[in-house]
Amino acid sequence: MDANPILAETIRGNWVENRHRGAYVVMDADGAIIASAGDIERPVFPRSAIKSMQALPIFARHAEGKFHHSEEELALACASHHGEDAHVTTANGLLMRIGLSAADLECGAHAPTNAAARDALRASGAEPSPLHNNCSGKHSGMLSVALAMGVPTVGYVGREHEVQKAVRAAVEAVIGESLTEDRCGTDGCSIPTFAAPLRAFAYGFARMSTGKGISDELGYAAKRLFDAATSHPHLVAGTGHADTLLMAAFKGRLMQKVGAEGVQCGAIRDKGWGYALKCDDGNIAASQAMLAGVLLELTDPDDEQRKLLKSLAHQTIKSVRGAEVGELRAAQA
Amino acid sequence: MDANPILAETIRGNWVENRHRGAYVVMDADGAIIASAGDIERPVFPRSAIKSMQALPIFARHAEGKFHHSEEELALACASHHGEDAHVTTANGLLMRIGLSAADLECGAHAPTNAAARDALRASGAEPSPLHNNCSGKHSGMLSVALAMGVPTVGYVGREHEVQKAVRAAVEAVIGESLTEDRCGTDGCSIPTFAAPLRAFAYGFARMSTGKGISDELGYAAKRLFDAATSHPHLVAGTGHADTLLMAAFKGRLMQKVGAEGVQCGAIRDKGWGYALKCDDGNIAASQAMLAGVLLELTDPDDEQRKLLKSLAHQTIKSVRGAEVGELRAAQA
Repeated sequence: MDANPILAETIRGNWVENRHRGAYVVMDADGAIIASAGDIERPVFPRSAIKSMQALPIFARHAEGKFHHSEEELALACASHHGEDAHVTTANGLLMRIGLSAADLECGAHAPTNAAARDALRASGAEPSPLHNNCSGKHSGMLSVALAMGVPTVGYVGREHEVQKAVRAAVEAVIGESLTEDRCGTDGCSIPTFAAPLRAFAYGFARMSTGKGISDELGYAAKRLFDAATSHPHLVAGTGHADTLLMAAFKGRLMQKVGAEGVQCGAIRDKGWGYALKCDDGNIAASQAMLAGVLLELTDPDDEQRKLLKSLAHQTIKSVRGAEVGELRAAQA
Repeated sequence: MDANPILAETIRGNWVENRHRGAYVVMDADGAIIASAGDIERPVFPRSAIKSMQALPIFARHAEGKFHHSEEELALACASHHGEDAHVTTANGLLMRIGLSAADLECGAHAPTNAAARDALRASGAEPSPLHNNCSGKHSGMLSVALAMGVPTVGYVGREHEVQKAVRAAVEAVIGESLTEDRCGTDGCSIPTFAAPLRAFAYGFARMSTGKGISDELGYAAKRLFDAATSHPHLVAGTGHADTLLMAAFKGRLMQKVGAEGVQCGAIRDKGWGYALKCDDGNIAASQAMLAGVLLELTDPDDEQRKLLKSLAHQTIKSVRGAEVGELRAAQA
């Protein structure tokens, strides 16, 4: 297997310390490659980077028609949120409205990703609940799908449960590839994750962004989800996170989502392009630098957007005393 | 530049998720290569993996003759410790004996690496001090060197300070290479770090392990430092850390030290071999898996040692709910 190119590296003083390899592809909805590097056919686990695809059954299985998800709830279904008040409240609100509770979530509990939220919860003496799990919005949405489908909610994370079958079918429909059992694992939040080529995920995001080549129903669902996520960027990640900052700065033009282990997926909506990127070694910060390098080239950023992208493409490394001693940078930025 | 080989990878379900490339070399004190993979001539920053080399001036500059460092203080000089009570007490004890205090440490303050120590400090309401910095033992030792040399302690972390010149000279003497300004950066604890080939660091550890090819004075110093570190493995890292577990399991046969950004250095003392390993992308856990794969092959481990090495060469990845969903494994283990 050929090595992917170095797309980000760490400099300390005047010497390279770390090298991060990876691959990415930007595609249009006709399947034309706008830009790429590395092996874009090697199947990768998309993890949370495709939560907006996994949320499609909220529409396709008529949960939205039944429960009238708010825009905030739709944004949170696409989120890896940081467990801040707005995130927990929104997830809990949907669960209550559909007659369920945190006890029905099968994602597991972990402390809030946001440090202030983590400290506050700790100070309150309460234990982290599944509502604080970064995936609780996605899981609440999946529970609403189970109810709309009239199937048991228990076990909704299982590979053979009707909800996960619906998720798999929706992802297959937009990426134009079969998701197969020989490339399957379990995500951190207990649902299945299927590996597929980066090319297919980029293609799927281009099709979701434009509605081209997919059913009107999926195109409508995709537009509602992208509109919700880009209108509520804080709900999709949290205070200070790159995804939140990027979507806020691009004012609806950019749908952007990180996935665990260095995956980045999204769409440059005004151009109708989708993209997918994977850092081979799973380093999230490096994948953000790589992504910023790509977006600098392809988004025609304004001054504010450029400044933000530059800060992600050149991340300062500091000593314990706070002196600048190096940077993590996109290889070509 | 050719890509280094994949030495560790992450598996999720039935598919590879991440790939970690790297290089390593195991050498004897005559400079013969026992085993290697990847580019061992590419200069890398050794970071904290060579703290035992950086501690050599404690003997070479007669600080030990003057202040009679205890075995515990010598072990802590070689340590990236976790800020537990024994670590803080030992660092503070040396500082008090030489008439200095935590205020003289120029490493900066950070919270203890050990979670229980961090929680206890937090519960006490006290702020982290430089004594909790994982490098406080090394820095206390450097301050003792400054006093023994009769030079000002202030600014001892600077590249042009006599202490750092002594450290640089000692490292050059054992690795047999010049450390040059064109491959230099600042470490997290504010002292200089110089990049040199993995081969040179492995050679240096082999020479320190055997005393071959270096002065009697450096050979004596190395033996004292390795004896101290391997006799007090908890002081060199902390509760549950791989270095502590490995040195305890190998009962003096193995000198082992991690460095930031995926470096591993040490010596298989009974064989007189030194080694150096770098994970290209800086991932510490992956570098530990790589190291375990190498040590499994070369240390003739007993059952207990083999079990520990296997657990490092196959690190379980769990979901938030605690289910086993994958592993980080050495590529050949």
